[in-house]
Amino acid sequence: MKSERKLHSFDSGITLECGDILKSFDLMVDTYGNLNSDKSNAILVCHAFSGSHHAAGNSSEDRKPGWWDELIGPKKAIDTDKFFVVSPNNLGSCFGSTGPTTVSPDTNEVYGKDFPDVTVLDWVNSQKMLQDKLGITSWAAVMGGSIGGMQALQWAITFPDNVKRSAVIAAAAKASSQNIALNEVSRESIRKDIDFCGGDYLKKNTFPKSGVKAARMLAHITYLSEENMNKRFGRKFQKNESKVGEFVDYEVENYLQYKGTKFSEFFDANTYIIMSKAMDGFDPAEKYNDELKEALKNIKAKLLIVGFKSDWLFPPDRGKEIQLAAMQSGINSSYLELDGQQGHDSFLFSNERYQNSLEAFLDN
Amino acid sequence: MKSERKLHSFDSGITLECGDILKSFDLMVDTYGNLNSDKSNAILVCHAFSGSHHAAGNSSEDRKPGWWDELIGPKKAIDTDKFFVVSPNNLGSCFGSTGPTTVSPDTNEVYGKDFPDVTVLDWVNSQKMLQDKLGITSWAAVMGGSIGGMQALQWAITFPDNVKRSAVIAAAAKASSQNIALNEVSRESIRKDIDFCGGDYLKKNTFPKSGVKAARMLAHITYLSEENMNKRFGRKFQKNESKVGEFVDYEVENYLQYKGTKFSEFFDANTYIIMSKAMDGFDPAEKYNDELKEALKNIKAKLLIVGFKSDWLFPPDRGKEIQLAAMQSGINSSYLELDGQQGHDSFLFSNERYQNSLEAFLDN
Repeated sequence: MKSERKLHSFDSGITLECGDILKSFDLMVDTYGNLNSDKSNAILVCHAFSGSHHAAGNSSEDRKPGWWDELIGPKKAIDTDKFFVVSPNNLGSCFGSTGPTTVSPDTNEVYGKDFPDVTVLDWVNSQKMLQDKLGITSWAAVMGGSIGGMQALQWAITFPDNVKRSAVIAAAAKASSQNIALNEVSRESIRKDIDFCGGDYLKKNTFPKSGVKAARMLAHITYLSEENMNKRFGRKFQKNESKVGEFVDYEVENYLQYKGTKFSEFFDANTYIIMSKAMDGFDPAEKYNDELKEALKNIKAKLLIVGFKSDWLFPPDRGKEIQLAAMQSGINSSYLELDGQQGHDSFLFSNERYQNSLEAFLDN
Repeated sequence: MKSERKLHSFDSGITLECGDILKSFDLMVDTYGNLNSDKSNAILVCHAFSGSHHAAGNSSEDRKPGWWDELIGPKKAIDTDKFFVVSPNNLGSCFGSTGPTTVSPDTNEVYGKDFPDVTVLDWVNSQKMLQDKLGITSWAAVMGGSIGGMQALQWAITFPDNVKRSAVIAAAAKASSQNIALNEVSRESIRKDIDFCGGDYLKKNTFPKSGVKAARMLAHITYLSEENMNKRFGRKFQKNESKVGEFVDYEVENYLQYKGTKFSEFFDANTYIIMSKAMDGFDPAEKYNDELKEALKNIKAKLLIVGFKSDWLFPPDRGKEIQLAAMQSGINSSYLELDGQQGHDSFLFSNERYQNSLEAFLDN
């Protein structure tokens, strides 16, 4: 699989939904496969909360395989023998694109807490600039899971002429009150870490590791299904020799402690807040008097909505809400509820039915 | 309603499941109603996580009505015209019974982090000592919701001859992997608060308010149903003039911030850890090779198991597991699934069907 990583600079800048202007910005972008001569085989994949441009393959400079490596590659669901996959790191994230850890051209200091709020629409607008820069008129598809699925839906709404298919996977048309509440607990942990310093930790050469760790531990629980946790960890006690701390009794505690610590070693705290606020704020129906069908009515792309039975963060019902609104708007949309054993994270793992449905959606 | 509050001292001490011995201990106990001459009308109510002896009424010395005030009182589900209700604060809690905030007779300093782990069985054993002290041979009923329900179940198992009825409400026969995981995130927030000082905060004249606040915010979400949160808060924005902080966007965030802060002003941090560990550790089937029916087979009390549809902390399925095991053991047990709109907290609120079922259970 041909794979390329490139930093794209946009010197024309971007005006964000919040009103702030970034005079210039960069997007770190991976591409997989080959763009065909009429540029009709390009697929945009949009990452979720903690994802990055590294969606596929396992290059030497990355710690592990790309986040959608089970789905992207030769003969995989998103077949790089057929498609040219474009995978940008989102604006406001911390993996190479302009975000809170970037040096601001205005101040010559890292943005830190002063990086503006970004929204799903801001991401889509920046990705549209990337599309234009690549000379692509219309994506063969925009696809993503979780907040990635929200971006796919926003793309179909905002740029109806520039996307042929949109796959909205393990997502929702808006965050629920509970979604917001859980995110707020995570943000609270980060903000109250004494090393957060009101978001100015980089300038003070410190980092709120404890806060990010606790935030991730909570988020991680929402990504797994209760059934799967019971199967995997149940109430098994952690062996003494492999405990991360003396306070640990159960395997599930040790696992979360380990995962949280690992995450806190590479994920930026301000980015955590920005990404979670973007998720909370997504609500394309808001400006249509809460009528989602009105928000969807100009969509020309074919939609695929996928929900996973064991997902309790964005359960299948949230996908059905989108499908119902799509049907009421008279647009072309299919809804599929898949088994997926991994809860919300099911969107990351391939299985036969998931692969077949994505293939059929892309080939059709 | 006659109401009395009394500190009962047990100078004979108690040996805890962990092996530690408390040479003496106190239980703060409320009673409501009158004990009849043959002492056959006493009901023990067991409190949940953050509850106390103050289960009913609204005395001048308490901040608000008792936690089960909707159910306990004259002509209420637990009718104090008929029953004598005994409501102790649990060992290890922070409302008057011996716990981490108590001065240890051994060291003449507060126990703090050195207060031993207590279990549901320890609570039941200490409550049995209270029963003996009151001269009551058999409780007409032991009742409770959440960890209170776990105590009611443990009572029926451990002291089959000393309890006639046991109401296990919004509870489970053991904590799930997800239950433990969520508790661990809360504990992590507390432990990592710089003011926790390894649990020695009282000796250092400080208190981990931030950690306890974040812990409670998370726990609070698990007590509410997603549907109810959507109805109550939805995605409504908080008015600027009533925001608790500039970081707040949504009403649900403001609500959780407020509730968390309030809680952190009166609930002890070490107690939080002790109570949550007791919940995690409850598993009466463990010593019966995970066969719950074996654990239940000597029960003589009549059981009532109640689950609430909107409860996602201990969903109705967890109650059904107990009922199934009870049927397999051949003991007398009924299971009831009630509507309750308030999620896990539904056990705290009266409604006609809930009241009728408890009345019938107690009268029968």
